[in-house]
Amino acid sequence: MDQSTERLLNKLHALVGPAGLLTDADAQAPYLTDWLGKWKGATPVVVRPANTTETAAVVRLCSETRTPVVTQGGNTGMSGGATPDASGAQVVLSTTRMNRVRAIDPINNTLTVDAGVILANAHDAARSVDRFFPLSLGAQGSCTVGGNVATNAGGIAVLRYGNMRDLVLGLEVVLPDGRVWNGLRGLRKDNTGYDLRGLFVGSEGTLGVITGVVLKLFAQPRRHATAWVGAESLEQLVSLLGMVRTRCGERLTAFEMMTAPSLALVMAHVADTRAPLVQAMPFNALIELSDAGDASLSELLEATLAEAMGDGLIVDATLSASEAQTQALWKLREGISQAQVRAGKAIKHDIALPISSLADFVAQAEHDVLASAPGTHIVNFGHLGDGNLHYNVMMPLDIEPATLSARTHQLNGVVHQLVTRFGGSISAEHGVGQLRRDELRIYKSPVEMELMLRIKQAMDPNHLMNPGKLL
Amino acid sequence: MDQSTERLLNKLHALVGPAGLLTDADAQAPYLTDWLGKWKGATPVVVRPANTTETAAVVRLCSETRTPVVTQGGNTGMSGGATPDASGAQVVLSTTRMNRVRAIDPINNTLTVDAGVILANAHDAARSVDRFFPLSLGAQGSCTVGGNVATNAGGIAVLRYGNMRDLVLGLEVVLPDGRVWNGLRGLRKDNTGYDLRGLFVGSEGTLGVITGVVLKLFAQPRRHATAWVGAESLEQLVSLLGMVRTRCGERLTAFEMMTAPSLALVMAHVADTRAPLVQAMPFNALIELSDAGDASLSELLEATLAEAMGDGLIVDATLSASEAQTQALWKLREGISQAQVRAGKAIKHDIALPISSLADFVAQAEHDVLASAPGTHIVNFGHLGDGNLHYNVMMPLDIEPATLSARTHQLNGVVHQLVTRFGGSISAEHGVGQLRRDELRIYKSPVEMELMLRIKQAMDPNHLMNPGKLL
Repeated sequence: MDQSTERLLNKLHALVGPAGLLTDADAQAPYLTDWLGKWKGATPVVVRPANTTETAAVVRLCSETRTPVVTQGGNTGMSGGATPDASGAQVVLSTTRMNRVRAIDPINNTLTVDAGVILANAHDAARSVDRFFPLSLGAQGSCTVGGNVATNAGGIAVLRYGNMRDLVLGLEVVLPDGRVWNGLRGLRKDNTGYDLRGLFVGSEGTLGVITGVVLKLFAQPRRHATAWVGAESLEQLVSLLGMVRTRCGERLTAFEMMTAPSLALVMAHVADTRAPLVQAMPFNALIELSDAGDASLSELLEATLAEAMGDGLIVDATLSASEAQTQALWKLREGISQAQVRAGKAIKHDIALPISSLADFVAQAEHDVLASAPGTHIVNFGHLGDGNLHYNVMMPLDIEPATLSARTHQLNGVVHQLVTRFGGSISAEHGVGQLRRDELRIYKSPVEMELMLRIKQAMDPNHLMNPGKLL
Repeated sequence: MDQSTERLLNKLHALVGPAGLLTDADAQAPYLTDWLGKWKGATPVVVRPANTTETAAVVRLCSETRTPVVTQGGNTGMSGGATPDASGAQVVLSTTRMNRVRAIDPINNTLTVDAGVILANAHDAARSVDRFFPLSLGAQGSCTVGGNVATNAGGIAVLRYGNMRDLVLGLEVVLPDGRVWNGLRGLRKDNTGYDLRGLFVGSEGTLGVITGVVLKLFAQPRRHATAWVGAESLEQLVSLLGMVRTRCGERLTAFEMMTAPSLALVMAHVADTRAPLVQAMPFNALIELSDAGDASLSELLEATLAEAMGDGLIVDATLSASEAQTQALWKLREGISQAQVRAGKAIKHDIALPISSLADFVAQAEHDVLASAPGTHIVNFGHLGDGNLHYNVMMPLDIEPATLSARTHQLNGVVHQLVTRFGGSISAEHGVGQLRRDELRIYKSPVEMELMLRIKQAMDPNHLMNPGKLL
């Protein structure tokens, strides 16, 4: 350890005490790689401040010593946005010790939490006052609310409730120079200037350290109805989405699509799963309605699906008749990640398209991918109601790393060029991080890149906040 | 006219032709004052470009000649944000000739329009494909979509659908140097960098000229239920709001509050209005449910209000039994602006509070206002479901301008200090413009003002976009 690092550690020790520092290699290890194991980095120290004041002091010290800061929440990101680089110069600032629920206001329908509160704990806090916080994703048992804000997390309830940007009313942020911006407002309307809140949402740690969040709460849904439908084509599922929206209105909570290969993968690799329909169908959708009121959702969904069947949109459907059956249907959708890991190496794409272009995109993409990489197969599923596909190309489990890397580069080009041609996004909900940083320059206009860089320069002139990510 | 102005006019003439320039004083007059007649300014020329290319050329010329630009849509703002100053140096750029509907996509549920499209025409375009664009406000027959974006417009449907920020998916913006940022995306999810879209929304013409907008569309509501309720206290209305939310869920579309004096004012000054309830009540609410589906909303609303009455929350209620009755109830709410103009001079405050603080705020504000200005009376009404009050203090019609100005300054201080103490906003939906510019410096933290100024500097380094407004 060189002298300047030792001085830094001594100063940090004075600011956060021994409980707030991890210098031991074993203790640091989980912070130096992402959960996918895709990225690895090094750090002189992992700092775990206990509160906003300590965070501010740490960031101020880092600003004074020109030390780069990589903020990390639950470390469940998909794009390497929270892993330090290999230089060993970047301090990791973990928010996980800041885990207090600060305030719950069931009349204003707001929940104020430290950034390090686990998402599932935010759910529990809302439920404790008969309210509902809707953000829902696979990692909810370990991801943090602050990380959800920094990456503008999505998940399976976006169709109805929006993504994290729509669910955050206020923020507290430690700025790159160590000052604190207190924007912890719980207001539904506030037209007093630029939307700083919105600027920090999705900024992936590059503009400051989020330390506190005011979340919007909702009425608890009282009733649910769940169905599985099978269709011959994606066009038909898109038409069905329109019909369900028109007939069921805002009750539509999820409309998740799975192709036949995605479903087959789950049934092959995840225990206790079985086919939801008698006959395997090329395109499947898991549809959920929910309602905070008293309507009979099962009847509404049944009538809607009967009409869709009459119109020839779907071939078969099963309506859940019990909580156990609902869970079994969701298990098929949620088992995909696990199944993919067992079945092979997935070259993943988290893309969004205008819903009206989905079917054309998928037809063209399948053609282009198979032309570029014959013999591969495509696992395509996702949040159809949001136009968000997880469009993955499967490679053998035993593929050589160099081959996988070359194939990834090649297929990213094929898929993302097509996405761009259809007016889509190359990162719908997983963010940019390290994963898509180089590609961002290819697919964003120079004007847009310049605007983002100007904002970065204005907010973080010394470029100390999460360097090497996003921009 | 001095030489440099003449040169500017000649160059502008070459860019937009005679149809795009207004130099005659009479023709310019409507562009040089706001519709409230509160602000007046001067300009060398009103430029009305026909499209984005012309707009870009005009802004580029203004950048090169260091000419300030004041962008104006339908000129229906409440805060003087679109009126040039008195210097005569600021060019007015009117978007009203850019009024094409560019694209309608009922499958993706998006509508792409020029910024100068009138809001009511956007409603019609949506309706033409059996869809719904929800932003709804008094000026919808003359305000423009671009102005709605620039001011983050609110109105009576925010409770259910959000404000303009929530309703915009993509933007096209001419930047201060004349380049065009094409962010016309129609995506529900896009996590590829900073939220530039959100930064332009509500920036009041200070960061660029919005020329195109992609709007979110929704299913047409098929059913409505409307009721008027009377309560003894604001606390009870706040409790009722919570109950209606829990029982009726997302069907709750409007929850508008009127005090007894607000209602009396309407009945005294607006023709064809009558008391909605037998007995005058201190606090009234106009409640509307709507539903894109098939549920019986009247029964749901009736059952909910019966329970509220049983709980002692409300004293009386009337449920609309016909479209005519619904219109009559809404006329009471919508007549307030007209009634105020006839009854006196209103010192207006457009404020938002946490809903849980509304009742305490109102009690304290009434005390403070009457202590500061004895003998005045308060007209308090607003979008209770959003925590947004239009909190107005009435002065006599014949008050001297100097006295009105002094009283306005005095009562703004009283009301806005209290708003700030309760964690509220001094401009919920009307924006900052000129009206609240000086006050913004008082009530915003220095950190927040500095962040906004840094963004302004980064985006508009020559400070040519709508100078003198907002910041």
